[in-house]
Amino acid sequence: MGVLSSALDVPTARDRMGRLRALTRAAGVSAVVVSPGSDLRYLIGIGGASFERLTALVVPADPAVPPHFVVPKLELAGLGQDPFDDLGIDVRPWVDGQNAHVLALAGLERGPIAFSDTTTALHLFQLRDAGATDQRPAWPIVRELRMRKTPEELAELRAAGAAIDRVHGRMAEWLRPGRTEREIGADIAASIVEEGHAAAEFVIVGSGPNGSSPHHGVSDRVVEPGDVVVVDIGGPLPSGYCSDSTRTYAAGQASLPDVPSAYAALRASQEAAVAAVRPGVTCQEVDRAARLVLVEAGLGDHFIHRTGHGIGLDVHEEPYIVEGNDLRLEPGMTFSVEPCIVFPGRWGARIEDIVVVTEDGVESFNQRPRDLTVL
Amino acid sequence: MGVLSSALDVPTARDRMGRLRALTRAAGVSAVVVSPGSDLRYLIGIGGASFERLTALVVPADPAVPPHFVVPKLELAGLGQDPFDDLGIDVRPWVDGQNAHVLALAGLERGPIAFSDTTTALHLFQLRDAGATDQRPAWPIVRELRMRKTPEELAELRAAGAAIDRVHGRMAEWLRPGRTEREIGADIAASIVEEGHAAAEFVIVGSGPNGSSPHHGVSDRVVEPGDVVVVDIGGPLPSGYCSDSTRTYAAGQASLPDVPSAYAALRASQEAAVAAVRPGVTCQEVDRAARLVLVEAGLGDHFIHRTGHGIGLDVHEEPYIVEGNDLRLEPGMTFSVEPCIVFPGRWGARIEDIVVVTEDGVESFNQRPRDLTVL
Repeated sequence: MGVLSSALDVPTARDRMGRLRALTRAAGVSAVVVSPGSDLRYLIGIGGASFERLTALVVPADPAVPPHFVVPKLELAGLGQDPFDDLGIDVRPWVDGQNAHVLALAGLERGPIAFSDTTTALHLFQLRDAGATDQRPAWPIVRELRMRKTPEELAELRAAGAAIDRVHGRMAEWLRPGRTEREIGADIAASIVEEGHAAAEFVIVGSGPNGSSPHHGVSDRVVEPGDVVVVDIGGPLPSGYCSDSTRTYAAGQASLPDVPSAYAALRASQEAAVAAVRPGVTCQEVDRAARLVLVEAGLGDHFIHRTGHGIGLDVHEEPYIVEGNDLRLEPGMTFSVEPCIVFPGRWGARIEDIVVVTEDGVESFNQRPRDLTVL
Repeated sequence: MGVLSSALDVPTARDRMGRLRALTRAAGVSAVVVSPGSDLRYLIGIGGASFERLTALVVPADPAVPPHFVVPKLELAGLGQDPFDDLGIDVRPWVDGQNAHVLALAGLERGPIAFSDTTTALHLFQLRDAGATDQRPAWPIVRELRMRKTPEELAELRAAGAAIDRVHGRMAEWLRPGRTEREIGADIAASIVEEGHAAAEFVIVGSGPNGSSPHHGVSDRVVEPGDVVVVDIGGPLPSGYCSDSTRTYAAGQASLPDVPSAYAALRASQEAAVAAVRPGVTCQEVDRAARLVLVEAGLGDHFIHRTGHGIGLDVHEEPYIVEGNDLRLEPGMTFSVEPCIVFPGRWGARIEDIVVVTEDGVESFNQRPRDLTVL
């Protein structure tokens, strides 16, 4: 019995498919359509790709009917036959001129059909025209599968955390006054790959005022002595499981007088949120734990985003650590804890660790010092 | 009056927005929701990015109501205010915890809403829950804007064609027996960027049997003397307009006896299809012109995909050159003409030029020799 990808063996994939079908039946949905993306990779080890030509795995709720994979014939050679043979999936190749959307729906029992998050409007509307008129989101089904990680998945995420920690550990080689964010970012990106990632999916180097824009990338701004610099970096391992960690550095002693006390409050906020993580606590309670510390320090208005996001095959996935989310944490759930403080046009800081909920508490996958590191 | 991107000035963007609104009214739709992707770039010069957080331009049909741009507040700093001020677009920033989908629909008149192709199921279902219950595809509206290129867009596509021609012109530096497809592909990718592209979006080096899989990428297969090698390459210029050109090479005199006559038929097929292009001809007639030559040569079953695809800000867009598409060509339409022949497990060949429909015929943006080039 082989493996389907570096992080998915055949028994695991069969188990996932079986649970997906049971959850689909329980949801009263007749089939799930899984489009290229991480849901597909989770199920069969192949992420797929495609835009205007339909590629989709169709999983009927009825356990007597095998799943089928609709794919342009000219893409099929590049995928190999293994996952389909190993998982009992019928392949339905199609050629230009054929109606792939009719082919995708052929043989399904009538009823609502659920679609994975990455399914595009282009295909949803054509599938509607082909007969799938009652369309529903698949995420309530799929998240039940993906949200609690297996020991094998946790091992991948732990390895991803160690890999990005090694990159942060080398920051003094690159981050110094006189260099641009772009130059520093290019060195970081190379190191992310050197340390074992398949790609440097995102590199944020937010120096000085740019640190107050949480989704800043890099710019041609030259780092100045005394700048506070937010470095938020990560990417997928070859298995697809992602790292994501932020540390904040000072390029020499921080020049702004409000940095030490505000940073101390941020440090306490992140620590309080991590300490709040355990089974049974809701996502929004973790968010509140982070926020409370900053509010009490008079910095509540400077924490402008949610506390965190789930992570796995996607950098952002369920569960989201945000006010309004009353989902209760369970062992195996993995997410970021990353409060920020921003002072628009002046500076910003963020501390981000990936954590997993354990049987009685929390484990962090990132271990680098959380203080403001002066380089 | 400034420019919004290297290929979009403000008057052009205003004109596009005005025509979009007129077409939207004419379609009986109350608004168009444009998600991150090339439709957004076409309209405001920004492609955008986002996944689980909603970013969208909402364009009401009613000319008295300004368009609005829904965007996570933390993304806004990275976008700049220019396109919104210049185009009279209201910005609606939102923060985590707010219902962005309700915000996106606020103030719209009741009626059907159209969604751009790249809108994901994740957001379509949430927008439906927020009140957009009558959902339609935007492509019948948007393609009326994007399908016929302006002189400025044609200049970009012509430049993209010249850039990729320069890469093909250097093929003898890299493609030779003893090197792997992957090594050759890496050199080609570097050259694609050197010659002026923003990125090497795709590099296919299909040697020997791999040439029979049209969407093969690269592999560790070592090119052997006498191999036929399909090289299909391209990417976007900094403006976003794309190149895409295929030439087929032989690594020394082709070793298989059926290559010369089959390749001659392919050459004639591609020439016949290009010669068929002029205003008033349907897309499927161009496909038939290519196919007829190969059928008559007894090779019809070896031409396994459509003849071509439109190209512009997307590598694949309308119009598709495929049987069943009775759209009539008009001046300014740009697309590929790329018949192939494949002999599974043995070899394959393809010749691909990007062409534009002119007032009385056709112009090709690719000029490299179309014969089987022996290196």
